[in-house]
Amino acid sequence: MTRPTHLAPVDLPQAYRLMNHGPTVLVSAAHAGRRNVMAAAWAMPLDFDPPKIAVVIDKSTFTRGLIEGSGRFALSLPCRDNADLCLAVGNTSAHDGTDKFQRFGIESFVGEDPALPLIAGCVGWLECALLPDPPLATRHDLFLAQVTAAWADGRVFRQGRWQLGPDTDGLRTLHHIAGGAFFSPADLLQARMPG
Amino acid sequence: MTRPTHLAPVDLPQAYRLMNHGPTVLVSAAHAGRRNVMAAAWAMPLDFDPPKIAVVIDKSTFTRGLIEGSGRFALSLPCRDNADLCLAVGNTSAHDGTDKFQRFGIESFVGEDPALPLIAGCVGWLECALLPDPPLATRHDLFLAQVTAAWADGRVFRQGRWQLGPDTDGLRTLHHIAGGAFFSPADLLQARMPG
Repeated sequence: MTRPTHLAPVDLPQAYRLMNHGPTVLVSAAHAGRRNVMAAAWAMPLDFDPPKIAVVIDKSTFTRGLIEGSGRFALSLPCRDNADLCLAVGNTSAHDGTDKFQRFGIESFVGEDPALPLIAGCVGWLECALLPDPPLATRHDLFLAQVTAAWADGRVFRQGRWQLGPDTDGLRTLHHIAGGAFFSPADLLQARMPG
Repeated sequence: MTRPTHLAPVDLPQAYRLMNHGPTVLVSAAHAGRRNVMAAAWAMPLDFDPPKIAVVIDKSTFTRGLIEGSGRFALSLPCRDNADLCLAVGNTSAHDGTDKFQRFGIESFVGEDPALPLIAGCVGWLECALLPDPPLATRHDLFLAQVTAAWADGRVFRQGRWQLGPDTDGLRTLHHIAGGAFFSPADLLQARMPG
């Protein structure tokens, strides 16, 4: 439960920048004595300030009940160094009583909300307060939330943006293709206005 | 209006794969004699089959009126080779009467819907039918749609997934960081179940 060494707070109006480039996220929540974490490739920013996000959470997931019960969840952004963990939590369910944290040796820490587990070894974290919309959840499995606090690994996210570097290759975000295969960001390109 | 040489249809149940890794998209639409195209970093898959997507489209955009008028829009996935175009259509508005296609020499073609311009030079295309939800649009600028047809550039999307190759570096998707700076996917990683 120790906080990561390189944990750096992210100003709320810049929190959308953590997800602007489309990374896969881990969704964690806790309620009534249970906790869980799952993977979600379908997540995106929804607003700048106050920052909001949207994420698709299937009816079959155990995490969904925890979110609906507590009204809170966290997004943690996994990286190359913990890609196996991302696959593991994405391919198992807590419905059978499994505590994935125990089973896979996942370490967590807390940010502002003492009940909300943030996943250690990740490179970005967003604490979220659910904006309840039951019809949207029922019809489309879509959950909207306001980001109430955000942090990043200061080695790879500084001055409000992701920074690539030769020494931090393993800390690059994951972008799910299919079947546990992921791309990572590379080759920064600065576009120019034509003409 | 000629179709791209390497245009390959994408089976609808695999259309979500085009956007699963979080690329920035171009949103195009046409209505009542006007057409437009804008950039959107906040877009994601919403369902597998039938495929659906979610995209955030600000109230200030001209494209939004075209979508609400016609009930249709297209997503085109830009790549490194046309990143400047992506910045250009993202930093200009058609509200002053500008036709961005003319101004920036943007070539388009049609897929199934003869009224819907798909952007040439991109590497993926999804034709979408709006699932109207006015409260969601008003409150969150969020638009949901069903994908009715999809195509990809067969050089970089085959067998239902993106393929990286040394000869197609310029055809990699764009993932917006900030201010016209983009990452592109690289360094495929296959995660393994622990234990």
